Amino acid sequence: VLSPRRPGKSSSASGEDRLIAQSFRPLATHPGAFGLADDCAALSARPGRDLVLKTDAIVGGVHFFPDDPADKVAQKALRVNLSDLAAKGAKPIGFLLSLALSTPIDHEWLGAFAAGLGKDANQFRCPLLGGDTDYTPGPVTISIAILGTVPAGTMVMRSGARPGQRVCVTGTIGDAALGLLLRRSAALAQRWKLDGSQQQYLLDRYLVPQPRNAASEAVRFYAAAAMDISDGLAGDLEKLCRASGVSARIGVERIPFSEAARRAIASDPALIETALTGGDDYEIVCTVEPARFDVFCAVAAEAGVSVTEIGEVEKRTARAEGARFFDRSRKPLLFKQSSFSHF
Amino acid sequence: VLSPRRPGKSSSASGEDRLIAQSFRPLATHPGAFGLADDCAALSARPGRDLVLKTDAIVGGVHFFPDDPADKVAQKALRVNLSDLAAKGAKPIGFLLSLALSTPIDHEWLGAFAAGLGKDANQFRCPLLGGDTDYTPGPVTISIAILGTVPAGTMVMRSGARPGQRVCVTGTIGDAALGLLLRRSAALAQRWKLDGSQQQYLLDRYLVPQPRNAASEAVRFYAAAAMDISDGLAGDLEKLCRASGVSARIGVERIPFSEAARRAIASDPALIETALTGGDDYEIVCTVEPARFDVFCAVAAEAGVSVTEIGEVEKRTARAEGARFFDRSRKPLLFKQSSFSHF
Repeated sequence: VLSPRRPGKSSSASGEDRLIAQSFRPLATHPGAFGLADDCAALSARPGRDLVLKTDAIVGGVHFFPDDPADKVAQKALRVNLSDLAAKGAKPIGFLLSLALSTPIDHEWLGAFAAGLGKDANQFRCPLLGGDTDYTPGPVTISIAILGTVPAGTMVMRSGARPGQRVCVTGTIGDAALGLLLRRSAALAQRWKLDGSQQQYLLDRYLVPQPRNAASEAVRFYAAAAMDISDGLAGDLEKLCRASGVSARIGVERIPFSEAARRAIASDPALIETALTGGDDYEIVCTVEPARFDVFCAVAAEAGVSVTEIGEVEKRTARAEGARFFDRSRKPLLFKQSSFSHF
Repeated sequence: VLSPRRPGKSSSASGEDRLIAQSFRPLATHPGAFGLADDCAALSARPGRDLVLKTDAIVGGVHFFPDDPADKVAQKALRVNLSDLAAKGAKPIGFLLSLALSTPIDHEWLGAFAAGLGKDANQFRCPLLGGDTDYTPGPVTISIAILGTVPAGTMVMRSGARPGQRVCVTGTIGDAALGLLLRRSAALAQRWKLDGSQQQYLLDRYLVPQPRNAASEAVRFYAAAAMDISDGLAGDLEKLCRASGVSARIGVERIPFSEAARRAIASDPALIETALTGGDDYEIVCTVEPARFDVFCAVAAEAGVSVTEIGEVEKRTARAEGARFFDRSRKPLLFKQSSFSHF
């Protein structure tokens, strides 16, 4: 049995704490991080701006596989948070990292983890502001709190959807959920008739999210409501509808799928449910006034992000409650479970 | 073996997510938390203020005992973070909670946890801004990111100590470390000649920290350097000295001990090392110009926090490097390990 905070450990152990700090110091490029040499970070307030805040954790054996490469695990941990900022129209400021590791510390793993995190901190201009590393007898647990900023009052809410607006999504849907199935059973690639690069594409979409921060400004300018899709399009759109007091009517044939996902679903039509409810997309679902839709698409495309209209917002009635998905013959799709549940 | 994010769980499971959200909603009293109904929180920037940020996690079986009462666990999780704000002179704004729990969810535990957290959120005026709950196959892990505020440029740093300043601490030192020993072996109470209330006092000091946020304004006005003592006075003062490029000379006989700690140390003098290096004090160590010391003590006392001078800051030389502790006969104390190590 492990006892909390045993005093009197060997003094070499505290060298570990220093080594860990050294791995992360290069990521703390924000002046307010004080090179991780103080207890807290300090950020000066920029008048006329709001701070946008979010925390999200990933746990070994739950959100990633224990043998996933450490640099990819780090990227996933940061990107699931970056994705929220993207959907809220916020620009990243930085993040706090809370990392729980088992002993003995695997220094190679930790080095790769810090390198992956540093790469993304750099790419997304989201430096490390501070952190905390602890021992855990359980799986590696990475909790990140991210800070972003928007002009005052402009954070894009879940609650802004109104009847008549178009519902759209970025990128393609369902890749990560299918990638997870492939990760668990490589034999599916053959059943789904995927070539090597298609298989790899789906695996990669599960391994490392591609958050749409490049489109966050477009979302802020043009979207009436938005959220990132982390627990499945069906369930997350349902949440957006509930927050807005509206319904949404989605044409499943309009939902953008990758070539690989298309093939998988063609081989096994039941996979449509996996694709729409399986989670880990880290795309953005948003609603846009029809008059603004074309400009939104053009601005997002300029930022390298494709946007697809998949349906429209409707009034919420007893008959039309929440997000409803229809196939080509206008038959409603009923899901066993519309959303990834954490429990 | 647990598989990451299995799609297709029973739909009753997602009710759990809602129940968890309901437990925490009453804590989200800040308007920017949007009642936890959106993906992110939003805070408006207050011109002329800095934001002060910190994250710290506690892990079951490491920082608390799995059978500690859930409300106390929650209080510890928040207070270890509040303590950092106190030492930096910052006023709490709110916090983000990342909670990893095993299944099945123990709803009684969760209710008590939320109640304890809510009590402290209220007492310290530090509301919940947002959160994330995940399943873990490991121990309960609670990661909190806390936000505070100071007038621009006034965060109290580790690096402000200068020769000639007095070194002082709030409250009493070593209680929690002794409380932890008692928690592991109740028989020690007799060996240490503690009565029931003294035993309970030490146990409580381990179970629930008493961060000195009431004195944070005094620290901000009067302290040149400060940090909270979480990993033992000896090691934490050493870190402060290193950050400031100074040494400190501490008279062990001047260090404030509680009556209970005094008795324990009298029965077993070796416990002085436990008291000074064991950690979990959540008091503040700071340095103050001699001319300001009396006013600092008076202002802190008015806020209900006792302050004791324990030594002075000296120039760092090859002979006097870092925090040095001397007994009554001016003999230096040498510790096996000066600081709690996380690994």
